[in-house]
Amino acid sequence: MSVTNALPADAASAAKAASHALATLPASSRDNALTAIHAALSEAKEEILAANARDLALARKAAENGELSLSLLSRLDLGKKGKWEDMLSGILDVRGLEDPVGKVTLRTRLDDGLDLERVTCPIGVLLIIFEARPEVIANIASLAIKSGNAAILKGGKESTESFIAISKAISTALAKTDVPNSAIQLVTTRDVIPQLLALDQYIDLVIPRGSNDLVRFVKSNTKIPVLGHADGLCAVYLEHTADPEMAVKVVVDSKITYPAACNSAETLLVDSSALDVLLPPVAEALLAKGVSLRCDAPSKAALATKLDAQLSAILQDADGIDYDTEHLSLVLAIKAVSNTSEAISHINKHGSHHTDVIVTSSTSAAEHFMAGVDSAGVFWNTSTRMADGMRYGFGTEVGISTNKIHARGPVGLEGLMIYKYKIRGSGHVTADYGEGEGQKRFKHKRLDL
Amino acid sequence: MSVTNALPADAASAAKAASHALATLPASSRDNALTAIHAALSEAKEEILAANARDLALARKAAENGELSLSLLSRLDLGKKGKWEDMLSGILDVRGLEDPVGKVTLRTRLDDGLDLERVTCPIGVLLIIFEARPEVIANIASLAIKSGNAAILKGGKESTESFIAISKAISTALAKTDVPNSAIQLVTTRDVIPQLLALDQYIDLVIPRGSNDLVRFVKSNTKIPVLGHADGLCAVYLEHTADPEMAVKVVVDSKITYPAACNSAETLLVDSSALDVLLPPVAEALLAKGVSLRCDAPSKAALATKLDAQLSAILQDADGIDYDTEHLSLVLAIKAVSNTSEAISHINKHGSHHTDVIVTSSTSAAEHFMAGVDSAGVFWNTSTRMADGMRYGFGTEVGISTNKIHARGPVGLEGLMIYKYKIRGSGHVTADYGEGEGQKRFKHKRLDL
Repeated sequence: MSVTNALPADAASAAKAASHALATLPASSRDNALTAIHAALSEAKEEILAANARDLALARKAAENGELSLSLLSRLDLGKKGKWEDMLSGILDVRGLEDPVGKVTLRTRLDDGLDLERVTCPIGVLLIIFEARPEVIANIASLAIKSGNAAILKGGKESTESFIAISKAISTALAKTDVPNSAIQLVTTRDVIPQLLALDQYIDLVIPRGSNDLVRFVKSNTKIPVLGHADGLCAVYLEHTADPEMAVKVVVDSKITYPAACNSAETLLVDSSALDVLLPPVAEALLAKGVSLRCDAPSKAALATKLDAQLSAILQDADGIDYDTEHLSLVLAIKAVSNTSEAISHINKHGSHHTDVIVTSSTSAAEHFMAGVDSAGVFWNTSTRMADGMRYGFGTEVGISTNKIHARGPVGLEGLMIYKYKIRGSGHVTADYGEGEGQKRFKHKRLDL
Repeated sequence: MSVTNALPADAASAAKAASHALATLPASSRDNALTAIHAALSEAKEEILAANARDLALARKAAENGELSLSLLSRLDLGKKGKWEDMLSGILDVRGLEDPVGKVTLRTRLDDGLDLERVTCPIGVLLIIFEARPEVIANIASLAIKSGNAAILKGGKESTESFIAISKAISTALAKTDVPNSAIQLVTTRDVIPQLLALDQYIDLVIPRGSNDLVRFVKSNTKIPVLGHADGLCAVYLEHTADPEMAVKVVVDSKITYPAACNSAETLLVDSSALDVLLPPVAEALLAKGVSLRCDAPSKAALATKLDAQLSAILQDADGIDYDTEHLSLVLAIKAVSNTSEAISHINKHGSHHTDVIVTSSTSAAEHFMAGVDSAGVFWNTSTRMADGMRYGFGTEVGISTNKIHARGPVGLEGLMIYKYKIRGSGHVTADYGEGEGQKRFKHKRLDL
């Protein structure tokens, strides 16, 4: 790893060259590099935390002047309980994952002595743009090395000192391994994002990790494919056969466990035929947790007759825009729909294709919903917040994708891989094959993997 | 299918709505639609060929005035021997392929009563921009319907009459099936490509099928992911242990069987230690087929001592740019390299990551080459022209991709699919899981598919 002040094009060109070397390293070399990084970071703990303290001091001043949010300040702090340990154990977790490189996913005998193989391989050079969390650098470096990809990291300026200290430790570690130093590069020069986004000849994939605005900016300003999601506008639909108790549990978990997360619910759709039964207990539980409810007329009317006057008084009217807004806070838009089809249409039109949930006792309604909703995650009787790489059992995640190609949903190591086709022949040429007399036919015999 | 003069945004919005309906149709409905299209086209043969004759008459005039190439004129002709029959049988071939929708590719028990499933599903709305070949419309419509995707087709203006006639037949056929008419739309309005490329809210994937310039234009002018390739700059490398006879066979097939194809060779690299042995027979065979050889100094010198004076006289000097040029004609750039590593570096730097070949008797050299070359196809002892969906046994292909994400190499139905994650729970919520006392742990038990 190197901390570079080089021109973005030089950094990217060096990363490309390194990616070709890295792609052919055996798993043991990549795993050894992770072991070395883990050891080097453990050793440099004091130095890194001191650098982080300098970042924090500056950030605290900025926060006092109102130039920086308190939540960003909190994300910056590497000394927070458990954070350092989590960062270090994360490296070993990644090392322990199955090697994603070189898996044969298709094998076909085209003809005698002519075998086709599809083999997984790294994508090449990743550009990861992220905001304040300094521990992400170790996480991303681990994922990149494990998957055989080179990576260019561009972090937020608030973490500069921490990033540089971490990078130095990683760099020292890599120098003793087979992984080329320029395989992982930290770009600290300011304002280079537009320049990096123009380097499609070297960079194969951009992964923005940060605010919706960052993701949108990246998507609008590059020819390089972008993996990620801007919005997370998730809905929960209570079908009329839903168990009311389960409805409460699922909606509360979807809304309040981490309102700022992309997999939290922003919209509640309720079957109008069961509005009186399903909505009041759910609303009471949400109100008790401090959630503001923005209701359409039918849902407000249903609640008004069931809730006590005090609670009814704090209900809000939904604006059309509420159904298209990712509030990221304790606000929930509520709407009555006449059936599952209408719920599906509403979600496909207003949602962000991230994760949507149906609560129902009807298998057919559930299957209808899961087939019809065009989202990365479609869940039956469970919380939107299950949409997560750790919960899915992927071990780690690069992020959650709402892309319609390559990787969708929580993206683990698999999303950092592509494949190549290898053919091993014995001088076979295409001119010998065809429909004509004396010409050969392909056998296309599927072989065991 | 409809022929639309609607505004591009209206056409795309209708396609999106249709895609949601199409995505939930069973395989039988999609297959029935293909049967109906096949029957309707057979019935409308005369009408379609008459429309095609009108296109041809206009095109012939344009060709006479030098406004249209003769090769385009030839691609336009639906009456050419076998073309009509191939178009019709292609529809049935696609119908006969395995259903790509709804395949379960991962199944994990997250906890008792909480199962995760990853299921293949259509991407959504495809925009296919193609040039003169009118039969492509039937091929693409079949692929789209089989894969459950809606498609917007924008064809070249030279085929307008043929397209409209084919579209009408397809439209009549679809009206009797479960496939919504607006699932397949032909846009005939002129100059709408930039408008369509801006509709990333409706269109999920663009597939340009045509010239390198078209592909580059599309890639530079849209936020929508693009599947395809601009250049096809393929190389053959003759390692010093190559069998000379096999080298001749492979190079000749790679170069001359279809010089305008993207999978034809443009560059020949020869191990300098075997230049005298390997290059002369290859060069003689190529010269006999009318190939212009652009040589670097060492390869020219090696040939000069072995070829007769007449042949030597027609050798050309390679310009640096020759190694970066897709000639698409009977021109081949030749270069001596000192070993396999240098061949790999040359190809990774100058090639287009499409398909590259090593001819060698050494397994280790072959494996080194196939691991190190960063291309969609890396072949040992066979022709670059094997890179083809039919030859790979994919039945049909949408095109050949040099993308580093989603689909690489020849792209069949699989490249038109993505997946969604389904979870079926029983009221499970995330707050119950964690490391704390009394909290549950995920089981992450991999289940059989």
